[in-house]
Amino acid sequence: MSFKNFLPNRPLTVAVLGATGAVGNELLQLLEERSFPIDQLKLLASERSAGKIKLWNGRNITIHPASPEQFQGVDLVFASAGGSISKKWRNSINAAGAVLIDNSSAFRMDPEVPLVVPEVNPEKALTHQGVIANPNCTTILLTVVLRPLSLLAPIKRVVVSTYQSASGAGAEAMKELKNLTQDVLDGKTSKSKVLPYSLAFNLFLHNSPLAENDYCEEEMKMINETRKIMESPELSLTATCVRVPVLRAHSEAVNIEFVEPIEVRLARKALNDAPGIKIIEDFHANRFPMPVDVAGQDSVAVGRIRQDVSHANCLELWLCGDQIRKGAALNAIQIAELLLPNS
Amino acid sequence: MSFKNFLPNRPLTVAVLGATGAVGNELLQLLEERSFPIDQLKLLASERSAGKIKLWNGRNITIHPASPEQFQGVDLVFASAGGSISKKWRNSINAAGAVLIDNSSAFRMDPEVPLVVPEVNPEKALTHQGVIANPNCTTILLTVVLRPLSLLAPIKRVVVSTYQSASGAGAEAMKELKNLTQDVLDGKTSKSKVLPYSLAFNLFLHNSPLAENDYCEEEMKMINETRKIMESPELSLTATCVRVPVLRAHSEAVNIEFVEPIEVRLARKALNDAPGIKIIEDFHANRFPMPVDVAGQDSVAVGRIRQDVSHANCLELWLCGDQIRKGAALNAIQIAELLLPNS
Repeated sequence: MSFKNFLPNRPLTVAVLGATGAVGNELLQLLEERSFPIDQLKLLASERSAGKIKLWNGRNITIHPASPEQFQGVDLVFASAGGSISKKWRNSINAAGAVLIDNSSAFRMDPEVPLVVPEVNPEKALTHQGVIANPNCTTILLTVVLRPLSLLAPIKRVVVSTYQSASGAGAEAMKELKNLTQDVLDGKTSKSKVLPYSLAFNLFLHNSPLAENDYCEEEMKMINETRKIMESPELSLTATCVRVPVLRAHSEAVNIEFVEPIEVRLARKALNDAPGIKIIEDFHANRFPMPVDVAGQDSVAVGRIRQDVSHANCLELWLCGDQIRKGAALNAIQIAELLLPNS
Repeated sequence: MSFKNFLPNRPLTVAVLGATGAVGNELLQLLEERSFPIDQLKLLASERSAGKIKLWNGRNITIHPASPEQFQGVDLVFASAGGSISKKWRNSINAAGAVLIDNSSAFRMDPEVPLVVPEVNPEKALTHQGVIANPNCTTILLTVVLRPLSLLAPIKRVVVSTYQSASGAGAEAMKELKNLTQDVLDGKTSKSKVLPYSLAFNLFLHNSPLAENDYCEEEMKMINETRKIMESPELSLTATCVRVPVLRAHSEAVNIEFVEPIEVRLARKALNDAPGIKIIEDFHANRFPMPVDVAGQDSVAVGRIRQDVSHANCLELWLCGDQIRKGAALNAIQIAELLLPNS
């Protein structure tokens, strides 16, 4: 079927698929906070969670297992239950006439699916054919920052190292980090179950499957998704993705090579004027973004913007962003807001 | 006075200045473990610790406050009590005929003081004039890895991001990380006193003073000390130094640009054959170095050596090393071992 670009001009029937996960929970909170125009809200999750009741915006809502019938009459589905679930239900969702905003990686590199960061390429949202993909968390944070800089001069190459919190691996990983940390403090040694190794006072290279080129999937997502979102298929980007013992919010050390030297003050101004960015940069107090600054916040925090001493055309900067919020749930809702008539 | 290059060929009188700190404690343990030829061991610390007794190698040794008299008859002093203490006592130490191996940054960039990583430039140790400087921890770990690679082809530029543990800020910072983490787990909010911000499930850019160019001192140490140790004054290097909630052991994501493409297998072989390096690299199991692997270990662990997809002449790799051990105490003792006759 063919889709109208915009959602209907009335309170919507919205389904959240994966309503019990870390991102699902944040989605529900943000839908309420941002007064997203909802008439009916359906919560869908695995059989395991079916029957549970969640309080949302003063209403008690029973969680149902996903089924084709559940999508009947739905206008919009937010999915954050993983790629296989999104693939499984995409046709049912679209057949019911609902638009799918998908937080998984299932459709991100599909050339017919727009991959949208509202601060970067909002116009792409309206080209959808029933599915819009929400990018990977680290990619969202990075592109929000790269976009205004790329307007100063074309970006040639980006070298990124990430500091990714447990939240990126879900609510269970956050719980495990707390439990295993308590064990270490109690002098006990215990093994991780959710993550491959204990994150308690430890860190490790992101454990997503390795590609042929020995980059992990998380790193390849950053590379490929950044190119797609920035519409720069030739952009050179390399990433080292690392999981760190932080509960929530990801950080990134970013080295950006432009085709020519860019003055730091111009870069700072461009970032300061750009949407979705908060500069936290007090050189006098040696105070720059930290994960605790951005947990629960909408903006990507940026600081220590400086001329790279090793390369005339490069700038260095540091960013932090809430992985669950701007890195996932908020970005998905911002995409949906682009589809609202008169948005 | 002029110094003999080698230490006397007999059991030595050794003083440890800063005997109660994290590095001092590790020094004492390593001097015992490595059977360093000691006749008499003197433990020196601040007035606050004077009078305390430490057990070393079966002997009870009383801690004394440093004074010119304490250095009389001493052959070798290991100092790890900070730059101002090292500066204060350097003349007394050398006037007594003792060689100072200094862990502080006080003399590292002094052109008359060799800055030594035994795996990299051991020959420099024997050019000393009474003082040999032990490099900064992150620099030691990095140069151990850069050295064998630089023999494959000249290195043009290095981009590093660090993941530095609390141990780098001393024993008190490690204790604070544990205490503040327990507070977070107990639902309490409490403020840091040792570090400027709480590291509990948090991280921040290294808080050393910022230079004119907006790099912090820790980053400038990496840049300047690496150039001096590698004898590559033109080497381009940029670093982002980050403190992470790990108790012990630093990690580094390193991007290395050579003057020409280098095959990964050749780089891996060079690293594997080099002293002081352990390759931890199981691509099948997605298993690479972690801080917990190297805590208490002598070698720098390296893994995920891969061709940078963004630049034909670049390799990416990941390393972890024990900051207190190879990053400080072990390196200092290895320097001293270079000065032993028939070493």
